[in-house]
Amino acid sequence: MLRTHTCGELRITNVSQTVTISGWVQGVRDKGALLWIDLRDRYGITQITIETDKADQQIIDTARLLGREFVISVTGKVTERYSKSDKIETGDIEITPHTIVVLNTSITPPFTIEDQTDGGDELRMKYRYLDLRRNPVRQNLELRHRMAIETRLFLDKLNFMEVETPVLIKSTPEGARDFVVPSRMNPGEFYALPQSPQTFKQLLMVGGFDRYYQIVKCFRDEDLRADRQPEFTQIDCEMAFIEQEDILNTFEALTRHLFKTVKGIDIPELSRMTYADAMQQYGNDKPDIRFEMKFVELKNLTLGSGSPLLWQGAGGEAFKVFNDAQLVVGICAKGASEYSRKQLDELTEFVKRPQIGATGLVYARYNTDGTIKSSVDKFFNEQDLKNWATAFNAQPGDLMLIMAGEINKTRKALSELRLEMGNRLGLRDKNKFSAHWVIDFPMFEFNEEANRWFAMHHPFTSPKPEDLNLLNSGNLEGLGGVCANAYDLVINGVEIGGGSIRIHDKELQSKIFSILGFTKEDAQAQFGFLMNAFEFGAPPHGGIAFGFDRLCSLFGGADGIRDFIAFPKNNSGRDVMIDSPSLISQEQLNELNLIVKG
Amino acid sequence: MLRTHTCGELRITNVSQTVTISGWVQGVRDKGALLWIDLRDRYGITQITIETDKADQQIIDTARLLGREFVISVTGKVTERYSKSDKIETGDIEITPHTIVVLNTSITPPFTIEDQTDGGDELRMKYRYLDLRRNPVRQNLELRHRMAIETRLFLDKLNFMEVETPVLIKSTPEGARDFVVPSRMNPGEFYALPQSPQTFKQLLMVGGFDRYYQIVKCFRDEDLRADRQPEFTQIDCEMAFIEQEDILNTFEALTRHLFKTVKGIDIPELSRMTYADAMQQYGNDKPDIRFEMKFVELKNLTLGSGSPLLWQGAGGEAFKVFNDAQLVVGICAKGASEYSRKQLDELTEFVKRPQIGATGLVYARYNTDGTIKSSVDKFFNEQDLKNWATAFNAQPGDLMLIMAGEINKTRKALSELRLEMGNRLGLRDKNKFSAHWVIDFPMFEFNEEANRWFAMHHPFTSPKPEDLNLLNSGNLEGLGGVCANAYDLVINGVEIGGGSIRIHDKELQSKIFSILGFTKEDAQAQFGFLMNAFEFGAPPHGGIAFGFDRLCSLFGGADGIRDFIAFPKNNSGRDVMIDSPSLISQEQLNELNLIVKG
Repeated sequence: MLRTHTCGELRITNVSQTVTISGWVQGVRDKGALLWIDLRDRYGITQITIETDKADQQIIDTARLLGREFVISVTGKVTERYSKSDKIETGDIEITPHTIVVLNTSITPPFTIEDQTDGGDELRMKYRYLDLRRNPVRQNLELRHRMAIETRLFLDKLNFMEVETPVLIKSTPEGARDFVVPSRMNPGEFYALPQSPQTFKQLLMVGGFDRYYQIVKCFRDEDLRADRQPEFTQIDCEMAFIEQEDILNTFEALTRHLFKTVKGIDIPELSRMTYADAMQQYGNDKPDIRFEMKFVELKNLTLGSGSPLLWQGAGGEAFKVFNDAQLVVGICAKGASEYSRKQLDELTEFVKRPQIGATGLVYARYNTDGTIKSSVDKFFNEQDLKNWATAFNAQPGDLMLIMAGEINKTRKALSELRLEMGNRLGLRDKNKFSAHWVIDFPMFEFNEEANRWFAMHHPFTSPKPEDLNLLNSGNLEGLGGVCANAYDLVINGVEIGGGSIRIHDKELQSKIFSILGFTKEDAQAQFGFLMNAFEFGAPPHGGIAFGFDRLCSLFGGADGIRDFIAFPKNNSGRDVMIDSPSLISQEQLNELNLIVKG
Repeated sequence: MLRTHTCGELRITNVSQTVTISGWVQGVRDKGALLWIDLRDRYGITQITIETDKADQQIIDTARLLGREFVISVTGKVTERYSKSDKIETGDIEITPHTIVVLNTSITPPFTIEDQTDGGDELRMKYRYLDLRRNPVRQNLELRHRMAIETRLFLDKLNFMEVETPVLIKSTPEGARDFVVPSRMNPGEFYALPQSPQTFKQLLMVGGFDRYYQIVKCFRDEDLRADRQPEFTQIDCEMAFIEQEDILNTFEALTRHLFKTVKGIDIPELSRMTYADAMQQYGNDKPDIRFEMKFVELKNLTLGSGSPLLWQGAGGEAFKVFNDAQLVVGICAKGASEYSRKQLDELTEFVKRPQIGATGLVYARYNTDGTIKSSVDKFFNEQDLKNWATAFNAQPGDLMLIMAGEINKTRKALSELRLEMGNRLGLRDKNKFSAHWVIDFPMFEFNEEANRWFAMHHPFTSPKPEDLNLLNSGNLEGLGGVCANAYDLVINGVEIGGGSIRIHDKELQSKIFSILGFTKEDAQAQFGFLMNAFEFGAPPHGGIAFGFDRLCSLFGGADGIRDFIAFPKNNSGRDVMIDSPSLISQEQLNELNLIVKG
């Protein structure tokens, strides 16, 4: 037996027991008369203490040869420490060894196995198996395990069945790019890896399974950004004989269950916000509502202003934009009236960055002495500015930040500024959680480049019944106004989940495919199986999918998902540890009937 | 709200409540004065009863238009039935409807949605979503869900962490054929889908995770046999700081837990059998020990026999085989002495089939009158046959069946005959379970065709320490005698799980790779990451993987795995429902830098 206890388990109550523990040498301190070994495993650290005048020479010799990360097994007696430590849970005891067995040696690791390590990202990824030994990384994956099992327990109790859907499926042109898998047995044909089990879970509903879930790998061959992985994990769910309200309630309960059981936090009931309100009040369909700072529209207050020049003057260009603006909108940053010129310039630079692309930023300081000082004093009198302050519900000490321009662009830019101000003012505490629903998403969005309508959620989402007339009017322009039975779960400004009530009627599904530019033949070739299934008594159904990697990273208080994945890939989709992807043999290519272009 | 209750939920205690239930119309019976609808969902069937002289005309009209598999929602009052049914759990009540809403219609299904259906296999697969509505199929998948969640609960309690390993990994030439995935971002390079997470779980052990599990999809591009799927599911486990004994005990406990919680069966402690014994006593490394019928070797009893002709006579050819046989071995079929000549001929035909390839079969009937009558009476006298009977521990009424020839072939053939006799004698009851371990597998097996040694389990399996000298002797012939720390879990003659203690020493791992024919460069290119990891303090570790599809099918009392998979593929690896694999667009091929050969 290689251990009777773990390195995190022994307490004062174990004193005088003979135990065996195994683990990695965290460090050895040799003071001549006394020699300490810190032995580490997943559960903690235990101190081994050797008194060199009492111990066997062999034990002393062995101990003196140990290096960091050697693997040893120690048998000995648990004794009470003279000087206890409250830094580790085993700090009351130490072990006086009878035997030390070296199970394996280690060369010097390329970085230290400590909470704060000296390994950069690249080194950590290459030696991920060493990185996993570090507490913060291991704790992230323990959190992930806990999240998964609590999700399963919750859903199991509600009669959800976990059903595994296939990984080798069929490539479809809608949505992101598929990873494909050549079929050797069907030369020239390919499987695709699922971007989500969407159609299969709908078929399970047609099949009467009524409550399905799966924690499942999905795949997208997209150009990778920081927070994207080519393979990622979803909590994928679907229910039949339900309405939107049932879904929202069920998965609000799941969310609360996870916060309660994993984080020990009771979160309040989730508020609901329409997409239209989210865009108007936060310029964002996933607003971070840990802090208020809602958008205030000022167009009315800037029309017919007291200023004779009406936004004309020094900054010609900028003022033209303001004057012609579809939208004048701002936020009020509480307590930021004393921002320096430099800080304000930084904010202007921030919104002018190409990623945001605003042309400028107007500010108005509501000074603590009650005066208001703005960057547009030439054009607005004190009363104008007071009126703005009233609209912002601003108090002395606040800073008003205002942008103007085309509606969508301006909202988007101001949303970025709002988040930046949230960061600067410390309003986005990672240990505070604010979850809510965004509902009533538009059904379609128009893509200028492709010059056609795309499904905002996906082509299986049902429109709101009251908007069916817009759909049937034949007037393509009106499609932008069609609302969908679609909803997102947003936590701390991150889209954690999204779903919809699906179409269960073959005719309506055909109609949507045709609006999305599918010919009848294409729709049949790609999704015929689903539309055929709808002929045999498809029940009303809907569902949701949670981005599990993101949910874990959010619970872990981190920004990125990579450290919540055991073996992640880098931004080129490469696993630098195993060095994959890689070349395959000519024999393999021949069997697959494929030629790689020269 | 589309339902307040399911169709399996209402009882006599619900009488006089107003409820809403939804589901599929199983059938409508119209007797004029009375009209019954059987409404079905996943949970059961509830009867709706309409008295046509009392009900609204609209309800009657709607009911008369209903067809099989229409989806309806019924609101009404629960009433006690006049004539109760004990065939269904809701048999005490019926519903008197206030409203019936047709949620969806259905065309006539291609087969009936009943336990015994008129749909053949092909039709069932094409319309799998309808097949899933049938009780037996749904129950199989419910069982699978239950198995999965009980596995997770058990392992979670023992501190096993579920860790997701990557699906896009690296192709390796050892083992079965990989499915590969072309990388668009790394032109000409490919990922592979995992045949198992083997190396990753070992790296998790190096990473200190010490107890890992995952219920995980694996992939093999093999020519498919009846019970194989290109994608299949494993319960994959690994532990560090353990010895073989720890693994066997832990996963014996898991097995017993599953039998207890899922089937309500207390199975006895698992016996252990060495590979050598399994082969000698059952001719099979996964013997079905629901029944005894062990092999008895008779070589000694057929040498120096009383017969002057010693296996020479009528059937020349056959007797030559017997005379020169390495092995003469038989089984005793209890109570089969009165098998007719026709039955015995059938058995002879059975063993002569090309899949088995035996040249003949000798029988000896131990008649109920105490005489023994054999097919080789010309060559053996009564005393010889009595001696055989003693060796077989045969009683009057038993039938002895004997084969002879080359050791391995003969054992294999007799094993098939033993299983056939088990079937014929009703000894292989699907509701009886007999689980045991087979241990001490050989490390290597020689492949004549490739003219080299292969790893019997896999290249990461550790040899028994006492056999290391055979490994190091440089004598390739001796490799067949090296035993591995490898074990299989066998239930009812099916290999349900297999695993081993792994190598954790870089030198030993290199040595094994070299024996398996890897050059140093190949080994480094393919498994360098693992051998490098072994330099940094790899702990002793080992694990096991259960074939989850088979385990479920065994628990479900079925032979095949297909009906325990929601959306299986056929023998050509094709999903006939979604019609996959399929052609992909030229654009996709271009992006992947691939050409399909003409």
